Amino acid sequence: MTTVLTKVTAGVLLIGDELLSGRTQDTNLATIADFLAPLGVSVGEARILPDDAAIITRTVRDFSDRFDYVFTTGGIGPTHDDITADCIAAAFDLTIAERADALASLRERYAEGELNAARRRMARIPDGASLIANPVSQAPGFQTRNVFTLAGVPQIMRGMLADIGHRIEGGARTHQISVTCEGIGEGDAAEPLAGIEASYPDISIGSYPFFNDALRGVTFVARGPDQEQLARVKADLERLVARLTDG
Amino acid sequence: MTTVLTKVTAGVLLIGDELLSGRTQDTNLATIADFLAPLGVSVGEARILPDDAAIITRTVRDFSDRFDYVFTTGGIGPTHDDITADCIAAAFDLTIAERADALASLRERYAEGELNAARRRMARIPDGASLIANPVSQAPGFQTRNVFTLAGVPQIMRGMLADIGHRIEGGARTHQISVTCEGIGEGDAAEPLAGIEASYPDISIGSYPFFNDALRGVTFVARGPDQEQLARVKADLERLVARLTDG
Repeated sequence: MTTVLTKVTAGVLLIGDELLSGRTQDTNLATIADFLAPLGVSVGEARILPDDAAIITRTVRDFSDRFDYVFTTGGIGPTHDDITADCIAAAFDLTIAERADALASLRERYAEGELNAARRRMARIPDGASLIANPVSQAPGFQTRNVFTLAGVPQIMRGMLADIGHRIEGGARTHQISVTCEGIGEGDAAEPLAGIEASYPDISIGSYPFFNDALRGVTFVARGPDQEQLARVKADLERLVARLTDG
Repeated sequence: MTTVLTKVTAGVLLIGDELLSGRTQDTNLATIADFLAPLGVSVGEARILPDDAAIITRTVRDFSDRFDYVFTTGGIGPTHDDITADCIAAAFDLTIAERADALASLRERYAEGELNAARRRMARIPDGASLIANPVSQAPGFQTRNVFTLAGVPQIMRGMLADIGHRIEGGARTHQISVTCEGIGEGDAAEPLAGIEASYPDISIGSYPFFNDALRGVTFVARGPDQEQLARVKADLERLVARLTDG
């Protein structure tokens, strides 16, 4: 019996000058990757973009064509540099306007006096998009075709992911095993490792060195869709480690 | 007197499947941005790329055209998935071969018996590149035209930056001030903030909300080349904060 494995991929766009200046350390990419892995979706590429409308618009269009799903984070707040919603609209030639359901969501949080023009901008949604609930601060994200537009603040972004899983048609789930070996370097294992990887075309194997003050070592990580095959790879890696550390 | 301000930009390519799978959290982008800021170079875009030769090669060529400088991290170790050096060579139609000076550097670290075929791969350098010293683990990085190819392991990457500053012709240094205000949200300040930014065309201002359990607030960050102007922006921001927190 042949198992047909669907490869489903996502592209991630992390938007904001503060990520490029070094002021803010992104953590959203890893959160999204961890969220997608159990759904059988792997991240194919990520970009960190400045608050530049032309670059964001062009990249959204390109990523929407190249990947099954696209996630954007950042740029949907109330300030003048929050331009992501307009860029999504421009990317797909959609109009954008304040929407009643998004405004209703904002009213759950803000009293009438607080809901000024700046905050009402957060109710501007590209035509035809479906809202993504924001249980943390109410200003919604939205889905336009295969593009999910989420907040940049990590707590809010994580909250929005809860309203996304049911929208995704996943693929074959990728499983992972790892074997750690202290006292060797990557170069000690590189050749036999390439041999193991060549024997299992569906499995990708990486080796990741680590350094402590006095210690060096390598962690081997194998990823693939077939758990039985991964178990065989794990046994091969353990034999390799035993051989390298015996010598 | 008119001061001519040169804008010098860099693109950053973070290479490795492990960054996209969520296994490894990148920190190199922020390190590079912090290194470049005092040199008057700002990061214009960053990409996180898989270990895919076609994508890496194409992107290196594109970034080399678009930015004054390009930094790549990752993929120059001894294993089968370390393909960055070959991609750089392919991007510029250069041959690539083992080089005596790079091999000499490896010999400082590895005894003859340890210097196997896998480790010798780390001495393969695109034709015409100049080496970048690696004080941590000796396997060198290299510069090809405006592209600096560095290790992915953060300790090693930081060590290599010490051999790069003298190669960079920087621009006008960007300075930064910040003002923090507790007890307000971004939306409270968005309109007056846009007014302040409009008054200072050379200054970019961002607002970054923060959340604690019981507290919310906003940090305003202004960046630009002129410190006198930044001091005036800071005073404007402080007046804004006083007004918002008095009301």
